[in-house]
Amino acid sequence: MSTNARFDPNFTPYVVNAMGPNTPERARVILGSLITHIHDFAREVELTPAEWMMGVEFINSIGKISTPIRNECHRICDVIGLESLVDEIANKIVTEKGESPTSNVILGPFWSPNAPFRALGDSIIQDPKPNGKVTYMHGVLTDMETGAPIVGAVLDIWQASANGQYDFQDPTQSENNLRGKFRSNEKGEFYWYCYHPTPYSLPTDGPAGVLLNIMDRSPMRPAHIHLMVTHPDYATIYPSDDPHLDIDSVFAVKDDLVVDFNPKTDDPKATLDMNYPITMALKKHHPNPNSAPPVSSFERFNKAGSQQKL
Amino acid sequence: MSTNARFDPNFTPYVVNAMGPNTPERARVILGSLITHIHDFAREVELTPAEWMMGVEFINSIGKISTPIRNECHRICDVIGLESLVDEIANKIVTEKGESPTSNVILGPFWSPNAPFRALGDSIIQDPKPNGKVTYMHGVLTDMETGAPIVGAVLDIWQASANGQYDFQDPTQSENNLRGKFRSNEKGEFYWYCYHPTPYSLPTDGPAGVLLNIMDRSPMRPAHIHLMVTHPDYATIYPSDDPHLDIDSVFAVKDDLVVDFNPKTDDPKATLDMNYPITMALKKHHPNPNSAPPVSSFERFNKAGSQQKL
Repeated sequence: MSTNARFDPNFTPYVVNAMGPNTPERARVILGSLITHIHDFAREVELTPAEWMMGVEFINSIGKISTPIRNECHRICDVIGLESLVDEIANKIVTEKGESPTSNVILGPFWSPNAPFRALGDSIIQDPKPNGKVTYMHGVLTDMETGAPIVGAVLDIWQASANGQYDFQDPTQSENNLRGKFRSNEKGEFYWYCYHPTPYSLPTDGPAGVLLNIMDRSPMRPAHIHLMVTHPDYATIYPSDDPHLDIDSVFAVKDDLVVDFNPKTDDPKATLDMNYPITMALKKHHPNPNSAPPVSSFERFNKAGSQQKL
Repeated sequence: MSTNARFDPNFTPYVVNAMGPNTPERARVILGSLITHIHDFAREVELTPAEWMMGVEFINSIGKISTPIRNECHRICDVIGLESLVDEIANKIVTEKGESPTSNVILGPFWSPNAPFRALGDSIIQDPKPNGKVTYMHGVLTDMETGAPIVGAVLDIWQASANGQYDFQDPTQSENNLRGKFRSNEKGEFYWYCYHPTPYSLPTDGPAGVLLNIMDRSPMRPAHIHLMVTHPDYATIYPSDDPHLDIDSVFAVKDDLVVDFNPKTDDPKATLDMNYPITMALKKHHPNPNSAPPVSSFERFNKAGSQQKL
């Protein structure tokens, strides 16, 4: 509770305690904390009626621009770091010895459950772009503690094309362009062809753009490739590698995920080489071993019917 | 800052400090506090990805149902007590001697700038309803400190009809039914005919209804009549009287605004009498003497063009 004596100290408890006996216990905890923090915020900054009404109109504008394939509130949460924080709360693993697996980052709104399985060594590039730089991406997947290879894990990769757009944002791309699922082999190895990633801007024609502008921040995300790695015995991770450490508009850059792209001269199919070792932790180390990643915008898109292609 | 040591203590400052040099100072204060409270909330309840995504979809749903004449986020703020709190922060007057004028309550989304001036003693009932109970409402407007009458103040009254609906929610009511502006006379007196107010429910077909349901709370507002009282020398107040002290879905009931309706036998035009003394404080006592009430939904309606009548 904020303690500005000018204001009635009983008001916030009165509002929180208005919840009836049939409120589920978890909802009571979440809403009680949320209401208290919102009230404390208003008292702390002495929010004026005009500022409050600006906030009201801002929140109304979030839903107005959202569609089954544009989740503006998800984006706003990314801009204020909330998705990164929720991911840390749900998924951070540190053993007693201080060991951690490869870091998770946010799933983001562009994962799809529909990426096809491909064979190791295949390319995920279905629709080549003239300026795309083909990269041979490879690595070994190992156990965080023993270093033993992890066999038969599924590596689900997705990335934007050389124009900074994902398949379902861009009518020139076929479905599942730059998406694919691969299985690690008996040595824990994985390898495929993809593009050197391209930095892109968050859409700035909606409330997220308004917010970034007020905050004098860049809408750019550093170039990155998403992965989700799953295995029955191991805690799922969804890192995204990153070739540089620029400020990220969604606060998803982590030190251990920054990688080097090196020239490749021995392969006619690629000009760059990227080695990406990944470690996973057994499920017993995970604080919530059965937690699933949040539903993505793409699942909303599927539910809304497949006609709605941007 | 919450202090759960499991989480990175540097993350929230990192997000807040990402604001650039061109952020207006007030925006930096407001957004810094808001982001910190949202992060603290998430850590405090250990918000899960699924719970966060429920919140994301809830916020998207607020804007989806809002229209120029339905401000759902305003309503959500009322349900969590935020408008009442913002009003307290902006308008609470307590002198060194402990004197306070008649309490303010929230303006609510139904005030209109267009109410016509009427003569003292007139009725605001343009469209009579068979079950409406006509009330002679009267009182004296006085100075909080001296008790002297306040002459020439504008008393702007608005209320829902006997069916619980305001004029612009209800096609059977003419514009400005149950709205009117009156001036206090040379004795500070005011008097007019109106209805005994009718309790009504907030609209429950949108996110506010979802929230009230989760919180196991009633959507009903106690019966009330709104007033806004303005005078060049005095701080504007907008009390709303109230015949009983039921729990209010928007937390706007205040003790000094609870009034009695008494039988009236000496007037063929009314069956009830309601005496409503009002005191006002000179502007010098107001913490923000030039602050205006927030823009109402009705002003949004006017801006959006007058065709859009529900």
